[in-house]
Amino acid sequence: MQKITILIHCEDQKAIIASVTNYIASKDGNIIYLDQHVDADENVFFMRLECEFSAKNWNLESLKNDFETQLATPFKMFWEMYTQEEKPKMALFVSKYDHCLYDILGRYSAGELPLEIPVIISNHEDLKPIAERFSIPFHHVPFTKEIKEEGELAQLDLLQHYKIDFIVLARYMQIITPNLIAKYRNKIINIHHSFLPAFPGAKPYHSAFKRGVKIIGATSHYVTEGLDEGPIIEQDIARVSHSLSIEDFIMKGRDLERLVLARAIKLHAEHKTMVYDNKTVVFS
Amino acid sequence: MQKITILIHCEDQKAIIASVTNYIASKDGNIIYLDQHVDADENVFFMRLECEFSAKNWNLESLKNDFETQLATPFKMFWEMYTQEEKPKMALFVSKYDHCLYDILGRYSAGELPLEIPVIISNHEDLKPIAERFSIPFHHVPFTKEIKEEGELAQLDLLQHYKIDFIVLARYMQIITPNLIAKYRNKIINIHHSFLPAFPGAKPYHSAFKRGVKIIGATSHYVTEGLDEGPIIEQDIARVSHSLSIEDFIMKGRDLERLVLARAIKLHAEHKTMVYDNKTVVFS
Amino acid sequence: MQKITILIHCEDQKAIIASVTNYIASKDGNIIYLDQHVDADENVFFMRLECEFSAKNWNLESLKNDFETQLATPFKMFWEMYTQEEKPKMALFVSKYDHCLYDILGRYSAGELPLEIPVIISNHEDLKPIAERFSIPFHHVPFTKEIKEEGELAQLDLLQHYKIDFIVLARYMQIITPNLIAKYRNKIINIHHSFLPAFPGAKPYHSAFKRGVKIIGATSHYVTEGLDEGPIIEQDIARVSHSLSIEDFIMKGRDLERLVLARAIKLHAEHKTMVYDNKTVVFS
Amino acid sequence: MQKITILIHCEDQKAIIASVTNYIASKDGNIIYLDQHVDADENVFFMRLECEFSAKNWNLESLKNDFETQLATPFKMFWEMYTQEEKPKMALFVSKYDHCLYDILGRYSAGELPLEIPVIISNHEDLKPIAERFSIPFHHVPFTKEIKEEGELAQLDLLQHYKIDFIVLARYMQIITPNLIAKYRNKIINIHHSFLPAFPGAKPYHSAFKRGVKIIGATSHYVTEGLDEGPIIEQDIARVSHSLSIEDFIMKGRDLERLVLARAIKLHAEHKTMVYDNKTVVFS
Repeated sequence: MQKITILIHCEDQKAIIASVTNYIASKDGNIIYLDQHVDADENVFFMRLECEFSAKNWNLESLKNDFETQLATPFKMFWEMYTQEEKPKMALFVSKYDHCLYDILGRYSAGELPLEIPVIISNHEDLKPIAERFSIPFHHVPFTKEIKEEGELAQLDLLQHYKIDFIVLARYMQIITPNLIAKYRNKIINIHHSFLPAFPGAKPYHSAFKRGVKIIGATSHYVTEGLDEGPIIEQDIARVSHSLSIEDFIMKGRDLERLVLARAIKLHAEHKTMVYDNKTVVFS
Repeated sequence: MQKITILIHCEDQKAIIASVTNYIASKDGNIIYLDQHVDADENVFFMRLECEFSAKNWNLESLKNDFETQLATPFKMFWEMYTQEEKPKMALFVSKYDHCLYDILGRYSAGELPLEIPVIISNHEDLKPIAERFSIPFHHVPFTKEIKEEGELAQLDLLQHYKIDFIVLARYMQIITPNLIAKYRNKIINIHHSFLPAFPGAKPYHSAFKRGVKIIGATSHYVTEGLDEGPIIEQDIARVSHSLSIEDFIMKGRDLERLVLARAIKLHAEHKTMVYDNKTVVFS
Repeated sequence: MQKITILIHCEDQKAIIASVTNYIASKDGNIIYLDQHVDADENVFFMRLECEFSAKNWNLESLKNDFETQLATPFKMFWEMYTQEEKPKMALFVSKYDHCLYDILGRYSAGELPLEIPVIISNHEDLKPIAERFSIPFHHVPFTKEIKEEGELAQLDLLQHYKIDFIVLARYMQIITPNLIAKYRNKIINIHHSFLPAFPGAKPYHSAFKRGVKIIGATSHYVTEGLDEGPIIEQDIARVSHSLSIEDFIMKGRDLERLVLARAIKLHAEHKTMVYDNKTVVFS
Repeated sequence: MQKITILIHCEDQKAIIASVTNYIASKDGNIIYLDQHVDADENVFFMRLECEFSAKNWNLESLKNDFETQLATPFKMFWEMYTQEEKPKMALFVSKYDHCLYDILGRYSAGELPLEIPVIISNHEDLKPIAERFSIPFHHVPFTKEIKEEGELAQLDLLQHYKIDFIVLARYMQIITPNLIAKYRNKIINIHHSFLPAFPGAKPYHSAFKRGVKIIGATSHYVTEGLDEGPIIEQDIARVSHSLSIEDFIMKGRDLERLVLARAIKLHAEHKTMVYDNKTVVFS
């Protein structure tokens, strides 16, 4: 059996679901998962389908061509189609913090993530030994305000060389350049160590401590031009109390950062997220 | 616009979704919500649909008849269809505990529950004043092992008189008779004050305390012949610690009981639950 | 047995705990609960004690006098002492939303709250019937920008008349005047329907929806001159998704508001909160 | 400054706290943390203290001797005293599952755990490469019913050789022998992949799936002679729904197992747990 995943969004119209499901039936496919959502305010329709086809009739090209002609053109759909075999290629950007890196590489090695990690890129050498432990190519690309352009160029070269599909900033503490954002629109995932939109920017645990909150959080989001303002993929929280110090907040927060980033990576790699109007539809 | 909700389950087969959505389209209806699930082990298909029809063409009888002929018969479907106007009638069974009763009546009075409460039935007189505060008929139906048959008869009479659709046991501490269970199969909701299947039966907070658990729970489920063994609708938990006494467990548990029961009532009244193989499918 | 609760805070110094516990021992008292906290940044010591004394030697006045002389004066302590019998008197301020009011009155009637509610004050007549259901005096005190002074005067008269110890704003949507805040410093509890400091001010559910957050929250805090900036007592959260509308956010949020406000009321009434530097120490 | 932690438990008596805090004051120590608990049913007093002493007067032996004479003997205390420098030595027992092992070694390498891991012991060779990646000695000790005695002997030899203080079973799927349990009473931590006491024994995710629960859990506990019946240290849960398969349960559960085990390890290594009557007091 061949298994494919289809993502669709378009203006909401009558009979979309009937047309898509008829199409799958006409191709002798079996729907094993279907989820849909209508944004009533914006009048946009979203759909995610998983289907199985028996291998002998299977032809991905004709499936795609007919989808374009019979569905996408008349309904003016934006759509993507993925086979189960294609594993997306993910680049890890890191800096000096190692806890998210260890967590991702542990999950990756344990076979929990449906993706490949061809490269780790960092603006410091510190985490190189970890990359070596896990036998993943590590590239040191210095990056500061002064050498932004050289840095970006080196990054883009590496991303092209390793055929990277999406990027994860695992506590990478540098600004991403507009060029890179434009090339990987809705394909760069950041983890921010607060419950956004509370405490954007630097030192959120310090701000949370000062404000005396009873709950701290972490947020994974797609990177956009606005700092910590991109579409939110996943959030989670942990209880804190007066008895914890800032250092305790930071330590508790590490577990949030690990978990929330790992979930976002998995959702993206499994094609379960769609972005619209600076928000995400997450079919989980 | 007329709004209806359709629940379907049947053996999993090809083209069910296409057929149902074609049918809705053929009736000029608009699907505003669709959720489906396939139990791969049992090969059963479940579906919940919300559709809108413009009022002028609207004819519920023909919609139902054609559904039966065109879909239910060929696919051997079990199905239910509800209009938004019909509010299900719920009977409350209580005993001496008042916290769930106050919570449900508060929500009901605040307009949060899409249902009617025509009657409260109790084996004690204690909570009658609360029913009076909220102007809901209260009937005292004594019930013990010795007078089980008279009790059941009186209950059935009241349920028929008030045209009751489903029953909620809001900490009603008596056994429900097999006759009543059979008449209201998957329509009697109980709240059990533990995280089932841990601590079934009497005094679960005492057992939880003795075992030294770090988390307590509450479980709402449909009542079946097996004590605390029916299909689970909803569960939730709260953290506890060594510093809490049994009385603290009980007090903390009251919030769980209130919330978990209120959620189950709402899910049932909105036709979001389906039962199969002693489990629930909850389309929430 | 007589049971008392003592709250202390003062500059951190050596031997405070030894001195206080010696004092209790010297009075033949038995410590049944002791919790303490040191704010290392501010060098402030906080303590909460529950003690039992056998009734025959019991003399509250001498206990207080000796505490003042032997401990409070040498250590420059701020302190409070409460007997278990004194129940604090709470005034409820409401407007048009009824869900928190129903919840508090239900808990109160069910005997869950160690306090008295002598009066409900509102700027509208809408919720008067609910107060009547629960047999609690209801006073309509109109309040708008234009008649702020008359409103405040009427409020202060009622609070004095009913000997009110603390005030709860159960979704009371009006500004509290500086005079009232000053008279009830750290004794006015508000519930804000967001996860502060995210979304302060009006319509937080709408802002949360627009931002596409995956978690919503509620926050109870003491009222200060800054809008939604007072010391946080308690917070909680609930998961949301793209499939929920603003109305769904509001409905889900009602459960958060109820719970978070009820917990804050209970903590305050049990003398488990202390305020320092716009933060709370909560000994729970 | 020298920092020590003291754990005490004894029969509840008057003036214990005063006596202990006086003692610390007499030694010119400063209490930076104090937590206590009285088990009212069993009449047992528990206490955990962190104190600082200025280095020049510091003498651990005299501190311990005087504690024994002045406090432990008269009050019949069980007590332990730890300096901050001593890091407990932890042995990891693993089998074939690698996710908890990766997580623990990642945290260990990232400097989050106040302990040393001198050895990993396994009944299979599978995870040896992971131990090598992290440069930790790995010993293969075959263990089956038939060779229980040789296995136990080899384990005990290794534990002695590496001077092990406590043992963590990171999804080690074999029975621990009574001898080993007796030698490491309340010093062997297991992670069980259910919300105990629900679903003890083998295949808890399968049982949870079959029962149709809406929440799954994980439990860390000290190992005793009764299978999955030891004192619970920590538990946590995750929501599941009808749409998840058994494989999804297992995958979701891995995050619970990782987190709950990591927290238990940290609590134990920081001397924050005490065991009494098959329950834990956790001063966190």
